[in-house]
Amino acid sequence: MMKKTIPPMIVEANIVRFDEISLDSGARLAPVDVAYETYGVLNEARSNAILILHAFSGDAHAAGISAETGKPGWWDNMIGPGKAFDTNKYFVICGNVLGGCRGTTGPSSIDPATGCPYAMSFPVITISDMVRLQKKLIDHLGIERLLAVAGGSMGGMQALEWAVAYPESVVAALPIAATLRHSAQQIAFNEVGRQAIIADPDWNEGNYYGRKPPARGLAVARMVGHITYMSDDSMREKFGRRLRNKDHFGYDFDVDFEVESYLRYRGSEFVSRFDANSYLYITKAMDYFDLTSGHATAAAAFERTKARFLVISFSSDWLYPSYQSLEIVRALRSRNVDVAYCELPSNYGHDAFLVDVAEQTDLIRGFLASTFERL
Amino acid sequence: MMKKTIPPMIVEANIVRFDEISLDSGARLAPVDVAYETYGVLNEARSNAILILHAFSGDAHAAGISAETGKPGWWDNMIGPGKAFDTNKYFVICGNVLGGCRGTTGPSSIDPATGCPYAMSFPVITISDMVRLQKKLIDHLGIERLLAVAGGSMGGMQALEWAVAYPESVVAALPIAATLRHSAQQIAFNEVGRQAIIADPDWNEGNYYGRKPPARGLAVARMVGHITYMSDDSMREKFGRRLRNKDHFGYDFDVDFEVESYLRYRGSEFVSRFDANSYLYITKAMDYFDLTSGHATAAAAFERTKARFLVISFSSDWLYPSYQSLEIVRALRSRNVDVAYCELPSNYGHDAFLVDVAEQTDLIRGFLASTFERL
Repeated sequence: MMKKTIPPMIVEANIVRFDEISLDSGARLAPVDVAYETYGVLNEARSNAILILHAFSGDAHAAGISAETGKPGWWDNMIGPGKAFDTNKYFVICGNVLGGCRGTTGPSSIDPATGCPYAMSFPVITISDMVRLQKKLIDHLGIERLLAVAGGSMGGMQALEWAVAYPESVVAALPIAATLRHSAQQIAFNEVGRQAIIADPDWNEGNYYGRKPPARGLAVARMVGHITYMSDDSMREKFGRRLRNKDHFGYDFDVDFEVESYLRYRGSEFVSRFDANSYLYITKAMDYFDLTSGHATAAAAFERTKARFLVISFSSDWLYPSYQSLEIVRALRSRNVDVAYCELPSNYGHDAFLVDVAEQTDLIRGFLASTFERL
Repeated sequence: MMKKTIPPMIVEANIVRFDEISLDSGARLAPVDVAYETYGVLNEARSNAILILHAFSGDAHAAGISAETGKPGWWDNMIGPGKAFDTNKYFVICGNVLGGCRGTTGPSSIDPATGCPYAMSFPVITISDMVRLQKKLIDHLGIERLLAVAGGSMGGMQALEWAVAYPESVVAALPIAATLRHSAQQIAFNEVGRQAIIADPDWNEGNYYGRKPPARGLAVARMVGHITYMSDDSMREKFGRRLRNKDHFGYDFDVDFEVESYLRYRGSEFVSRFDANSYLYITKAMDYFDLTSGHATAAAAFERTKARFLVISFSSDWLYPSYQSLEIVRALRSRNVDVAYCELPSNYGHDAFLVDVAEQTDLIRGFLASTFERL
């Protein structure tokens, strides 16, 4: 019997423009664009839509092969025909976040008032602002209620915010490797990244568009990020103390170790695809995130939530450790919300939600199926 | 009864010059200075000398009040009359490491061949080179055998190196929060610090002496360091999400959180007391450290060791985690070496050996006393 080859899913980005958006800071952006992709087909009842929410450096290209770049999406191993988010059953949507640099309005976008990029005149944004803009996108697509909102890391924060801010619009929420609030350590790592960018003279108070970007500062920031995304174990397995293209120490400051080479490569590669000012604004939004703020208890934050939840964390994730997911679970159970929780064993650290997807796939496939059946 | 006040121990730094030193790289330094301090009195048998080995950013001023600056030493809570390293009983020595910037020859020292600072023409050094220079200091002081060598972090690596390189000269070794070899993650954090410095245009290939130093790069490097020295728990306890001098978010890129303010302060404060090139050389020495290199097993590294050991780690130290201390213990026990091990409970992370000293004091006091009695 011949094995049937599944043709690659070629996808194109869409952009929709909205007149304006009001922000938590009191500022207003007008107009505001959202870049998004969709996969699968919306059913007649409009009941099979799933919104995927990307992490810090992600974009709208979550799945399939980009018609423009030929590259697979950042969660292509999770979204597609027969995959965890099965595009034969579900209509999957992913949009670039507000403040981003991949099609959605952000600091590198042109300010219509001046004809120049916003740069640091872009207003400070929050996770709640990102979600408010996504709601406009969902309304635009004619979807009243999402079967699910799902994402890892900052995407998980957005999933939580969705369930709280739009309780009528979310049937199920899947926050993965996420937290109710950024901790001091999480803020600290972000602050180091910001300071590395700001310290680069090429940053020039944010005014580097059309000129030399703050490549060195942004690369250092990204290097810090990569260390926090991996685990001590996964770095040992991947690099150990292996030397790079040499059999003894160089006794100089060129690359000696594989891990140094990897970090320098990932740092410089990032510069070609990410905007330094977006780095500042999006990390700030994460640091501001505290779903419990203004509530007497964490549980009170979920007072109006109607969604059911699947909360996932990873054993070796020290950036968003399991105890933070357990705080989400405790808060939800205190409100008697339907919540399932799994800590998945993985050596991959925080990156696990992107790369270690076999067991994650089983969990999510079953959870989505039972949610869909119950409708 | 009046409580007797113990007068503060006022200490002065000494500097000794040696003709030359040969380095692991094959290079030679001539001459080479060592800055050191001593506390207590060497007994007639010359049998009560303890060498204290400082960590990355430490110096020779380990205890007492500096006559020059009026400041207490970096381990003053551990060294002094009646303290863990009891200066009523022991003669305690501490020297600044080779490559340092606090009196011992390093990249900021004048190269006699040129009359200018070495800068990046300073040879790359290793932990073993540091120890070779300390041996010269000990010989100079007329001490054949040290009762103990002790230190935390990089100081612990030196203590291990001492016990291996000079087995006849070490009665007891106390490596605290240390490791047999730097791991990929430890190398990675150091590499980020180095890249932050090198990325600063004021670094200028290392030639900034008499000019503007690479203050921004060095500050970012130090910020990364401080995060790794603390624990998630201790950062939560110390800062949480507390805002700095405000009761709501600023919605700008000034300091919002206490933890941001702390990191910026510690970063800029470090610039006034540390040389950026020393940062490069000393972190490289740590990354090169692998006591097991060239041996079939970790145990084989300790083949000639005659010292007894007290190995200490701290429960919340994720930079030099307990498993690394346990590797030391396993290697020593495989050679039937006398070794005691304790993991002390502490929330302070890697900083614990500097600040959480009550139980550490009990352990060390008893271990030193029994070592001294057995002589």
